[in-house]
Amino acid sequence: MDRLINRRDIDFLLYEVLSIETLTQRERYAEHDRETFDAVINAAQKLAIDHFEPHAAELDANEPTLENGKVSIIPAVKEALSAFSEGGFMGAAMDFEHGGMQLPWVVVQACNAYFNAANLSTMAYPFITVAATNVLAAFGSAEQKARYLRPMVEGKFFGTMALSEPQAGSSLSDIRTKATPTSDGHYLITGNKMWISAAEHDLSENIVHLVLTKIPGGPPGVKGISLMLVPKYRLNEDGRSGEFNNVSCVGVNHKMGYRGTVNTVLNFGEAGECRGYLVGQVHHGLSYMFQMMNEARVGVGLGGAALGYTGYLHSLEYARQRPQGRHPHDKDPMSEQVPIVEHADIKRLLLAQKAAAEGAMALVLYCSTLLDLQRTESDPAELTRLSLLLDLLTPIVKSWPGEYCLEANKHAIQILGGAGYTKDYPVERFYRDNRLNPIHEGAHGIHGIDLLGRKVTMGEGAAFRAFILEIEKTIAQARPIELLDEYAELLEEILRELESTTEELIKIRDIGEVTLFLANASIYLDTFGHVTIAWMWLKQSIEAARRLSDASPDDRAFYQGKLRACQYFYRYELNKVPERLALLSSSDDTCLGMQDSWF
Amino acid sequence: MDRLINRRDIDFLLYEVLSIETLTQRERYAEHDRETFDAVINAAQKLAIDHFEPHAAELDANEPTLENGKVSIIPAVKEALSAFSEGGFMGAAMDFEHGGMQLPWVVVQACNAYFNAANLSTMAYPFITVAATNVLAAFGSAEQKARYLRPMVEGKFFGTMALSEPQAGSSLSDIRTKATPTSDGHYLITGNKMWISAAEHDLSENIVHLVLTKIPGGPPGVKGISLMLVPKYRLNEDGRSGEFNNVSCVGVNHKMGYRGTVNTVLNFGEAGECRGYLVGQVHHGLSYMFQMMNEARVGVGLGGAALGYTGYLHSLEYARQRPQGRHPHDKDPMSEQVPIVEHADIKRLLLAQKAAAEGAMALVLYCSTLLDLQRTESDPAELTRLSLLLDLLTPIVKSWPGEYCLEANKHAIQILGGAGYTKDYPVERFYRDNRLNPIHEGAHGIHGIDLLGRKVTMGEGAAFRAFILEIEKTIAQARPIELLDEYAELLEEILRELESTTEELIKIRDIGEVTLFLANASIYLDTFGHVTIAWMWLKQSIEAARRLSDASPDDRAFYQGKLRACQYFYRYELNKVPERLALLSSSDDTCLGMQDSWF
Repeated sequence: MDRLINRRDIDFLLYEVLSIETLTQRERYAEHDRETFDAVINAAQKLAIDHFEPHAAELDANEPTLENGKVSIIPAVKEALSAFSEGGFMGAAMDFEHGGMQLPWVVVQACNAYFNAANLSTMAYPFITVAATNVLAAFGSAEQKARYLRPMVEGKFFGTMALSEPQAGSSLSDIRTKATPTSDGHYLITGNKMWISAAEHDLSENIVHLVLTKIPGGPPGVKGISLMLVPKYRLNEDGRSGEFNNVSCVGVNHKMGYRGTVNTVLNFGEAGECRGYLVGQVHHGLSYMFQMMNEARVGVGLGGAALGYTGYLHSLEYARQRPQGRHPHDKDPMSEQVPIVEHADIKRLLLAQKAAAEGAMALVLYCSTLLDLQRTESDPAELTRLSLLLDLLTPIVKSWPGEYCLEANKHAIQILGGAGYTKDYPVERFYRDNRLNPIHEGAHGIHGIDLLGRKVTMGEGAAFRAFILEIEKTIAQARPIELLDEYAELLEEILRELESTTEELIKIRDIGEVTLFLANASIYLDTFGHVTIAWMWLKQSIEAARRLSDASPDDRAFYQGKLRACQYFYRYELNKVPERLALLSSSDDTCLGMQDSWF
Repeated sequence: MDRLINRRDIDFLLYEVLSIETLTQRERYAEHDRETFDAVINAAQKLAIDHFEPHAAELDANEPTLENGKVSIIPAVKEALSAFSEGGFMGAAMDFEHGGMQLPWVVVQACNAYFNAANLSTMAYPFITVAATNVLAAFGSAEQKARYLRPMVEGKFFGTMALSEPQAGSSLSDIRTKATPTSDGHYLITGNKMWISAAEHDLSENIVHLVLTKIPGGPPGVKGISLMLVPKYRLNEDGRSGEFNNVSCVGVNHKMGYRGTVNTVLNFGEAGECRGYLVGQVHHGLSYMFQMMNEARVGVGLGGAALGYTGYLHSLEYARQRPQGRHPHDKDPMSEQVPIVEHADIKRLLLAQKAAAEGAMALVLYCSTLLDLQRTESDPAELTRLSLLLDLLTPIVKSWPGEYCLEANKHAIQILGGAGYTKDYPVERFYRDNRLNPIHEGAHGIHGIDLLGRKVTMGEGAAFRAFILEIEKTIAQARPIELLDEYAELLEEILRELESTTEELIKIRDIGEVTLFLANASIYLDTFGHVTIAWMWLKQSIEAARRLSDASPDDRAFYQGKLRACQYFYRYELNKVPERLALLSSSDDTCLGMQDSWF
């Protein structure tokens, strides 16, 4: 039995629900076929089991340590990441021309699901490096690509994304790190960054920091942010890492989870000259970073989904093996105890996890497919539609898994009971690790404001309409299927309510009450997410229902499970939505009107 | 500003909402008055701040260690508990005749709120000891009281409750630990216990284990369980601890939270004779334990509530100090950042915590008052009514705080953002500690079955009717108050729905579908809990509204906060209840009908 991610489900999502083989008809992916995809996913699964999972508990118990500015990490991490780089995974989605495998992002995410489930902390190092390579590939100069990007794709250099500062976390417009131009073409970097993951370690020859800075004299706020490439070691002419560039790690954070991923306080240029190299144009830094954010945020969603998923499978395994108690109608204390998977409440906790984890995974892979389509689309109208859809879904795919797969991890602990609360099993670690996801890469509340304040309303609602249209297509496909009629009906109703609630909210904005308009944006985000996941369950159920009658016994059970999880989501979760929408429509100001002195 | 528990709120609950001074009219408490109560609570608050809080983080980072059967705990714990015993807190509620202060339980719980908030792990040792003293005071022989109870009340001996075994956690009928009678009057104990908290340490001269056992030849299941007093060291004639009694700690669990409370695997009688002494009558062990369980379970609820409460206050303090971002209408990046307490979403997270923590605390103190009234009631009809109410509320007060104050702790982390995820602040520890509460002293699902399968239906619904009547009294008091009319109306409606849902469910049971009847009992428990907490908020709001106009400015702000938290609970939480009740009424079998092979 799979304990990381159910491979049958990955195949179902990729090939039956998302039909990703059709991507190979596009020029970018023309050299691939399903066989390559499967081989890569197989390799990832094996690597995750052999090299990532075994040291996960050890790494959690032995977080990286800082001594004299140097961070040490248990050796197993470097070994795992060497195997990862050798397997080509650091450049799995990168263009051939930069040394990558040019695989579709959705295939890479299926691979990453295994790595994340096996060991989220170790996987964070390549996750951040890959994000940095994507920025450089898109916006770096030819020289930057040759000197920095190539060794990163090879896994010789690692990367970071250095955005936050002590006084500027959610509010990036307030960053202060300074980039002062010199006559030699480079900039001198001074200042501090905080919460920077993977920014000091002994895992790679060099670390390439992508740093948000302000060039003196530029415009205030986000319009004056420039992106700098700042290596830990300056490169010699021959491309080898040379002199220390005065990027100093002056502190590490001790965290409740994600403990294997070092999280640092950085100082630039205090002890000596720190050179930075402009990426792209001055003052465009934030937009470069945000153009790459969609991928990073899908990646955060994947982390949440993968943790929820493996927690589900671990608790399922336990529930099947652990005898405890008897059925309610059995009053004979001499009878055998039954495995707890037979108890209704345990089934409920398992179904809740299955619905959350598989629903989240479906959304992550759907959004990844959108990224692949967007990247390779030539028709301008379709490109616009894909981009709108993806922009709208980004706050959802970033946020929903971190919120509801955390809840799933809570259930996994509950199934294991006292055992789940101990370090003898990994479920408590999954729960601790997953708690970060609503915080980093934009806090939960920020995404609520992004969704309602920007995405839903942009282009006079163009993205929102594209979203509604997509769901309506799915509803239309589901309607003729008798098994799914109940769900199609309910989703249709709720979609209408979501539309009218959104209209009500926009009216509040239109009369200038922007603060009230956004006051409950987090609830809007969660509710919108529930509708989105319900859509994902209907998409899956259509394929399951269609295949049910001709399926093998194993597949039949698999499809029945999909249909039951869909039923669970509609009857136990989606039905919470109307009340939330009613609350939102009422523009309630209970929270907004609360006074500081009343707390 | 209070960071543990808001003292103004404690006074409000004790004297304005629960009018606990009236307890002093009862003989048991006649020697006390409000002055004594206040002095004891003041002493507890000071002791918690001076002796419990300072070592909480250190203890979390340095869990007890086991070497050669001996457990070592950092010295600060022993120091704190010596001060605790010297302050008389070990026997605070115990009868004068056994060396206690004979204080009302509700006053003791107010004290314990501070200790729990300051350091849950350290407080667990006296918590369990006090539970054991209550069992001995009620059911022990005169000799047992003289030799064991008295030194426990003095804090010289500590106690445990040893129920669970590896194969018997939720299902106590399956315990196997054996008590074999001898001709000398004592029993020989053999077997293993697991998950036993505070069962081996260097904090006290002796440890008195109260152990559930089976006497060979007795009836199977719970009807054959006998309670044994098993000291770690046998007592000499003079009452001093003597020879080792072969209770061996053979393992300790490494937990995600509650890390300072040692949790053990015990072996009885493997290395030599282990003597046990029967408490009460043979085969009555479980009922003795359960008669004391109400208090222990109120205590678990208090732990959850206290963690939620201190997490709320810590995050409030942070939110007032942390500048980040600007109001939505302020587009000037050069303007000052505002403290995050001004953001609507932060206010929402704070109100959610306030509503959960203060609501839970109100319920805990209400139930504690019921315990005091029950203990001192002479009128048989009133005694029955109090006992019914308390029995019904026990699964709620045990479960709701652990579930929803855990959610509150999640919000506290969110407010602190990245900082909240680090060990620089205690909120992540509160979250880890609180995760145990839905597991121990009866797992969440067990309490669902207890509530629906036993409490609601016992005496043909007598307890349920007593509960409804109490709430109706509160509703009747609220109706004439204009500020509260909306809430009185809503609670009335929901109470009717709860009644009809309960009737629907009982019909299912009455046609013999016991398994279906209980299938969603956990959801029933949570929903019932929401109704109960809504009632607590209405009770509080009545007092707040009555006093509002004549209050001092500080009190006015305090009462406004109460009214606003009530508004939050009714508009953002209680409104979730109708949909849950509709789901329950439909006797949905989605979970029950799930097949193992479909997962």
